Amino acid sequence: MNDDTRYTELKQRLSEIWDLGKAGGLLGWDQQTMMPPRGAAVRAEQLGTLSKVIHERFVSPEIGRLLEDLHDYEQSLPYESDEASLIRVTRRDWEKEHRVPTELREEMTRAAWQAFPVWVEARRESNFELFRTALEHNLELKRRYIDCFEVDEPYDALLDDFEPEMKTAEVRAAFERLKEGLVPLIAAAANEGDDEFMDGPWPREAQESLNPIILDAFGFEPGSYRIDPTEHPFAGSMGTQDIRLTTRYPEHQLGLFATMHEAGHGLYEHGVDPALERTPLCRGASLALHESQSRMWENLVGRSRPFWHWFYPQVQRTFPDQLGDVEIDRFYRAINAVKPSLIRIEADEATYSLHIILRFELEQELIAGAVDLRELPEIWNTRMHEYLGVDVPDDARGVLQDVHWSRGSIGYFPTYALGNIISVQIWERVVDAIPDLDDQFEHGRFGELLHWLREHLHRHGRKFTPRETLERVVGGGLDAEPYLAYLNAKLGELAPA
Amino acid sequence: MNDDTRYTELKQRLSEIWDLGKAGGLLGWDQQTMMPPRGAAVRAEQLGTLSKVIHERFVSPEIGRLLEDLHDYEQSLPYESDEASLIRVTRRDWEKEHRVPTELREEMTRAAWQAFPVWVEARRESNFELFRTALEHNLELKRRYIDCFEVDEPYDALLDDFEPEMKTAEVRAAFERLKEGLVPLIAAAANEGDDEFMDGPWPREAQESLNPIILDAFGFEPGSYRIDPTEHPFAGSMGTQDIRLTTRYPEHQLGLFATMHEAGHGLYEHGVDPALERTPLCRGASLALHESQSRMWENLVGRSRPFWHWFYPQVQRTFPDQLGDVEIDRFYRAINAVKPSLIRIEADEATYSLHIILRFELEQELIAGAVDLRELPEIWNTRMHEYLGVDVPDDARGVLQDVHWSRGSIGYFPTYALGNIISVQIWERVVDAIPDLDDQFEHGRFGELLHWLREHLHRHGRKFTPRETLERVVGGGLDAEPYLAYLNAKLGELAPA
Repeated sequence: MNDDTRYTELKQRLSEIWDLGKAGGLLGWDQQTMMPPRGAAVRAEQLGTLSKVIHERFVSPEIGRLLEDLHDYEQSLPYESDEASLIRVTRRDWEKEHRVPTELREEMTRAAWQAFPVWVEARRESNFELFRTALEHNLELKRRYIDCFEVDEPYDALLDDFEPEMKTAEVRAAFERLKEGLVPLIAAAANEGDDEFMDGPWPREAQESLNPIILDAFGFEPGSYRIDPTEHPFAGSMGTQDIRLTTRYPEHQLGLFATMHEAGHGLYEHGVDPALERTPLCRGASLALHESQSRMWENLVGRSRPFWHWFYPQVQRTFPDQLGDVEIDRFYRAINAVKPSLIRIEADEATYSLHIILRFELEQELIAGAVDLRELPEIWNTRMHEYLGVDVPDDARGVLQDVHWSRGSIGYFPTYALGNIISVQIWERVVDAIPDLDDQFEHGRFGELLHWLREHLHRHGRKFTPRETLERVVGGGLDAEPYLAYLNAKLGELAPA
Repeated sequence: MNDDTRYTELKQRLSEIWDLGKAGGLLGWDQQTMMPPRGAAVRAEQLGTLSKVIHERFVSPEIGRLLEDLHDYEQSLPYESDEASLIRVTRRDWEKEHRVPTELREEMTRAAWQAFPVWVEARRESNFELFRTALEHNLELKRRYIDCFEVDEPYDALLDDFEPEMKTAEVRAAFERLKEGLVPLIAAAANEGDDEFMDGPWPREAQESLNPIILDAFGFEPGSYRIDPTEHPFAGSMGTQDIRLTTRYPEHQLGLFATMHEAGHGLYEHGVDPALERTPLCRGASLALHESQSRMWENLVGRSRPFWHWFYPQVQRTFPDQLGDVEIDRFYRAINAVKPSLIRIEADEATYSLHIILRFELEQELIAGAVDLRELPEIWNTRMHEYLGVDVPDDARGVLQDVHWSRGSIGYFPTYALGNIISVQIWERVVDAIPDLDDQFEHGRFGELLHWLREHLHRHGRKFTPRETLERVVGGGLDAEPYLAYLNAKLGELAPA
């Protein structure tokens, strides 16, 4: 075998693994959007099997040998080439994954998908006790998972799954800075506001009718995406031309921001270079970079004055009873009001990160076994009071609000706040590059923004590490200052005179 | 390893293969109901990979060895036991499948899923030429597939995939008898009728509103199925508690019969003994037995007087403009009118089988390479005139009307007419067993029918061969006479006085 044949062989094997991974992705998407509820038990088995087969095929000695034999070939190629990147990224994945026993990988997947419907039910009943055993089982598996690795602190192993090479210590430092900056900012900005009208009701059909307008304007190509309602919005993809967005339409809330958030995720996947299709490079570089895109479209675009200058008349026409009498300025203030609240995904830009910091700290304690799970709701409620000054009325609006733990996604939350930080770091570059950005938005034109993001970020997929990717886009490392400065400026402008 | 361990090992491997097969099933369902059209190319690759992985795992030497080692164990168990059946059926599957090279299996799957969107487009454009190359490729692969087996005639190898152990010669004989019986019957019964009202329009939302009533009455358990619109209706399942029905709502036609047809398929899968879940026994015994169930619910139930005695008032209320003035007797005659027509799935009970016989004969010629594909539309049209006396106006309503060839399903069509035959053989047993069946239907009660079918047919899944299964249910072999007698009686009653 020569190097070309070896490379082709490696790529072929990885494409097949990618196909299987996407099959699992569709089963997961389906479970959360389409599946009749009684299908859940068998579905968890199916997902467990897929993850076992993927793991087996990936950690196979054949792939290990190909990676070894391709070492010199990789070094001979430009670092930025698709080929060198595929070998390099696969090597890192392989070295990590082959430490995990197949049985554990399978069991983690099965346990996660078994826990999901349990969480749905527990949340519906607002009773954490119904979910406790499932959570305990998932935590126990995570501890076994952590034991597969040599890490400075246990949480590093979990974080690395979502944010490769990021350390807990680094996140802790960034979050300290955030807290320090946010607390006075929130205190100064928080106000009751004049926005009872935001409680709706917002009829579902009317909400739905806005989706295609937004998604088309943001740059999705026709015939390459769909959007469906779900319990807890997420985005996925079956390929760069098959993007699956989800959202929700609670009666008392405009689901539009969830749609824009998921659209941001979807556009990242949609914009990966088609040459990377069916390879492990065909997705976002990390969860924080993914969140930088979702938060950017949701907040930096979707809560900006120029955006609403364009879009508000259409929304007003869609909801004449609710918004007919509401001036654009009042609406703009309402969607940007700083108001400590119970639910993370409904939180404003300023308080949002405090929801994350709470979870980041709590997850580390959960993994350390420092929390008696029977007391978890109480602990949650106490901290919500401490961090945000709100009183949690029930588990559904407290410890049970998020899907992540049910899905075994522990170590994921920090990436949301990191995404906030990075979104503004990137935005500073965007604003430098496109001086008339506001004017474009006022006319409903987002193409140049998307083009810039594709060119600098999306098309590369997962070719570079998150750190390298960030460096390439913004010319530096993680830095919370732009985010704090942005919030300061925005909230300053909005403060009551 | 002792026998128990070996059996557990075999079952575990088969369950994993079943999981992968169901993942492929979901990808297929999704492609036909949910997928954004631009996802098709990557989807075909994903399905190709799944079929390759399934094939590899199934024909593995380990499974071959387990089957060999379990020979005595199997013989020691009752023939009807789940365990003996699993080993026996798997052995037959294995001996067949291990003759097929993995590359060919993968390529057949990929080619089929690549052809599907091509067919959709060709049908939309009503232009067979657009589909010709894809069909040629699928036929070529089928010829290579046939070469893997030793058969009396080539078509046997294809038929066996859908109707295990059935021979082309046997089908030919049954179809000869059908033709002989049907031609005079159709000539006597055909009439223009008094049923312009059947052309609708039937608004989609109103049509949809009838589905839950039917499906609930027929016996689907809540939370264990869903029904979606598609181009060409089909039914599938992800497990006995996750049934996927599809239907369509053409404006000029009541889609209700498609719904009842697919419900029949779905109820078969829904009723398999849960002990067989996640094994290769967890599906219908064959396509003809499956069709016996779909045709039974569609025709023997769904076009019967007692059924409409119960259901007609509800349908009338749903379509007051279309049916308000139509007496039940006129409606009943209309839905049972014998009228040679263009489209198989819209054909009446009497002419239906002629559509099948045409396809059965043509498929054999296609496989033999006896047809120049450029002339296929013309050949189709000539035969439609010959068999049914109708003139085909375009490819969409001619040779392009069915999905099957695009999906590589060649050898499938005969099972529809076999299903017609078997449905009435079974029905005779049902009527013997439940003397007040008509009365039950008149009150919208179908539970006893379903219970009987579950007890005698559904729960066994694929434990027995189709021949054994039929023997167990009706106490004999394939026999066209009951079907012809049933049609004679029904059409005689309906004939103009």
